[in-house]
Amino acid sequence: MTHPSVIRPRDHAVYAAEKMGKTTLFESGRLLVGLNAFEPGQVHKLHAHAGQDKLYLVVEGEGQFLLEGRELPMAAGDLLIAPEGVAHGVRNTGATRLLVLAVLAPAPATP
Amino acid sequence: MTHPSVIRPRDHAVYAAEKMGKTTLFESGRLLVGLNAFEPGQVHKLHAHAGQDKLYLVVEGEGQFLLEGRELPMAAGDLLIAPEGVAHGVRNTGATRLLVLAVLAPAPATP
Repeated sequence: MTHPSVIRPRDHAVYAAEKMGKTTLFESGRLLVGLNAFEPGQVHKLHAHAGQDKLYLVVEGEGQFLLEGRELPMAAGDLLIAPEGVAHGVRNTGATRLLVLAVLAPAPATP
Repeated sequence: MTHPSVIRPRDHAVYAAEKMGKTTLFESGRLLVGLNAFEPGQVHKLHAHAGQDKLYLVVEGEGQFLLEGRELPMAAGDLLIAPEGVAHGVRNTGATRLLVLAVLAPAPATP
C-alpha cells in the first residue's frame, strides 16, 4: 500500500458504531501508519506490543490515554510514545469523535 | 531518551537562524521521532534513506515537500510518507515558521 501523495488523515477516518474503527495508511515491514477512530465512549483496551514502539498523535477530539498505569488527558496535536512492552490504551472521554494517528515500528508480522 | 508523559511538539521546537533546527523526541533502535523546524525560506535538501521509511506530519505552518521529483504543497495536519530509497525534501515557502514531525523507522544506526 503506498500513498505517493499528501495524506489528509481526516479524509481516511472510519468510525464504527460497535467498536473503534481502524484504517491503515501505510504499511511496510518497518513501519505501520494507521488511524484509530473512536466514537464517544469507545475504548482501546490496555495492551502492549513486544518488540514494537508505538507513537500516538491526536488528530481531532480529546480523550484519556493510559500509559504505564497512568491516565493522561490528551487533545488535538498531543503526542505520546509507548515504547515496546509498555502497556497503553485509549478511552474517548470527550463528547465528540476522537481520531488518533497510530504508528508502530516495526510493523506487526504479516500472518 | 524517554518521554513518559504527553508531548506537545510545539514546546520542543528549536529554530535556528543559520539552518533547519532539529530536535529528538524519542529514539530507540526501532523508531526515531523528531522535529524539523524551518524559518521562512529554509530547506532540507533532497535526500533518501536506504532501508528506512519516513513519515512527515506538518505541525504548524506550510511548505513545499518534494517526493519522487514532485512538489507537494502541505499545511498543518497533512502527512506524507517517503518509503525507503525514495528521495524527499522540504522547503518552507510560507511567510511563517514551519514545524514538521519527522518519524524514521528503523532509527539510524548510532555511530
